[in-house]
Amino acid sequence: MNQNIYDDPDFFAGYSRLARSRLGLAGAPEWPSLRTMVGDVSGRRVVDLGCGYGWFCRWAAAEGAAAVLGIDVSARMLARAAEEPHERITYRREDLEAFELPAASFDLAYSSLTLHYLVGLDRMLGVVRRALVDGGLFVCSVEHPTITAPSRPGFVELPDGRTVWPLDDYLVEGPRVTDWLAEGVVKQHRTIGTYVDLLGAAGFSLTRLVEWGPNEQDLAAHPEWAAEVRRPAFLLLAANAV
Amino acid sequence: MNQNIYDDPDFFAGYSRLARSRLGLAGAPEWPSLRTMVGDVSGRRVVDLGCGYGWFCRWAAAEGAAAVLGIDVSARMLARAAEEPHERITYRREDLEAFELPAASFDLAYSSLTLHYLVGLDRMLGVVRRALVDGGLFVCSVEHPTITAPSRPGFVELPDGRTVWPLDDYLVEGPRVTDWLAEGVVKQHRTIGTYVDLLGAAGFSLTRLVEWGPNEQDLAAHPEWAAEVRRPAFLLLAANAV
Repeated sequence: MNQNIYDDPDFFAGYSRLARSRLGLAGAPEWPSLRTMVGDVSGRRVVDLGCGYGWFCRWAAAEGAAAVLGIDVSARMLARAAEEPHERITYRREDLEAFELPAASFDLAYSSLTLHYLVGLDRMLGVVRRALVDGGLFVCSVEHPTITAPSRPGFVELPDGRTVWPLDDYLVEGPRVTDWLAEGVVKQHRTIGTYVDLLGAAGFSLTRLVEWGPNEQDLAAHPEWAAEVRRPAFLLLAANAV
Repeated sequence: MNQNIYDDPDFFAGYSRLARSRLGLAGAPEWPSLRTMVGDVSGRRVVDLGCGYGWFCRWAAAEGAAAVLGIDVSARMLARAAEEPHERITYRREDLEAFELPAASFDLAYSSLTLHYLVGLDRMLGVVRRALVDGGLFVCSVEHPTITAPSRPGFVELPDGRTVWPLDDYLVEGPRVTDWLAEGVVKQHRTIGTYVDLLGAAGFSLTRLVEWGPNEQDLAAHPEWAAEVRRPAFLLLAANAV
């Protein structure tokens, strides 16, 4: 099974204190961009890959999605999601490295900050493509590759006074071990080019590529996000099943 | 008129000593990747936007292109290109910020390391799209945004001994002034997301996105390129006119 860091008690305790855990989509700064990319979900059959607490599933159901399937590997997160059931939402505990979905049974697939944990991303994208109808939409977010690339992610001050992001080994793809909320969290670093190639190979046509950072409105409301323009935090992708 | 740094005597003298100037395509490490993206040019009508010395124009003509138009703003570079004429190549001195092309008259448009000098990239891409037949191909390279973003591009050594690329202001788009071969060279920094958006808005569908760095074969032949895996030097894009 894939690393299931979300069931690590220390990690889970830390994660549950993040704004995106406490506030849901409203606590995720990239959500307004993702929402635009997702569009109207009314009447759509939706699958959320790495659904966590189920915030997106509940949003989609509230927006009128016909049916929502949330998949996650973490029992702790699914237990929390199950505390707020909805008649059109189903949750399933599955490892995204090994799961299957019925063919041509969804109109929209969504995945937030999950793909960078997967080793077998090519397999996963193939399953998602076959589960979508032709013309279906896949929208996902990952940590931006400039974040996953460095051996020690974190701003540094140079001797000349500049504060910079220490980009390194961007083109060396593979696992990165960081101590984020818990020790030894493993993420898979991939370049943007590789994400685009994998989508194309799986039968998707890329329609949007957003390198998320705060816009002027965001910065007016959250001046503490100023450093986020130095390097993009998230990579958001939208692709059509072709 | 657009900044025409290539007619600056100091810049031109420096540029003419680069491997890509002395050796042409064989001196450009990203050329094998671009060549794959360009594909077979036999019988195609080709336009090269920012043709410089005409290396690509001559390659396309030698490969059997039906007609090749090379456009550049630099009189010095076009004079050099004209020293090796070819019956199927025409050169024109034009500013890519203000040029026009006849509609639906090309099968392939190519541009190497030129777009990052243009302020009006949206206009330029519109001209290129209209000049291509439906289904035509656009292949281009630009300096990778991780190169154009920092105020002072160049590897730095951190107090802890790490050597890193000082990424900064990635999401702050606009002009960057560097001293590359001459003082005060102005390039336009854009994110990858913006390049993809501009291509889409102009009527292109992205098919490839390559963040170029040396592969294992390259590194075996050129061990001095080892640092090039720390951050990608070039962004290569291929898109279909749709």
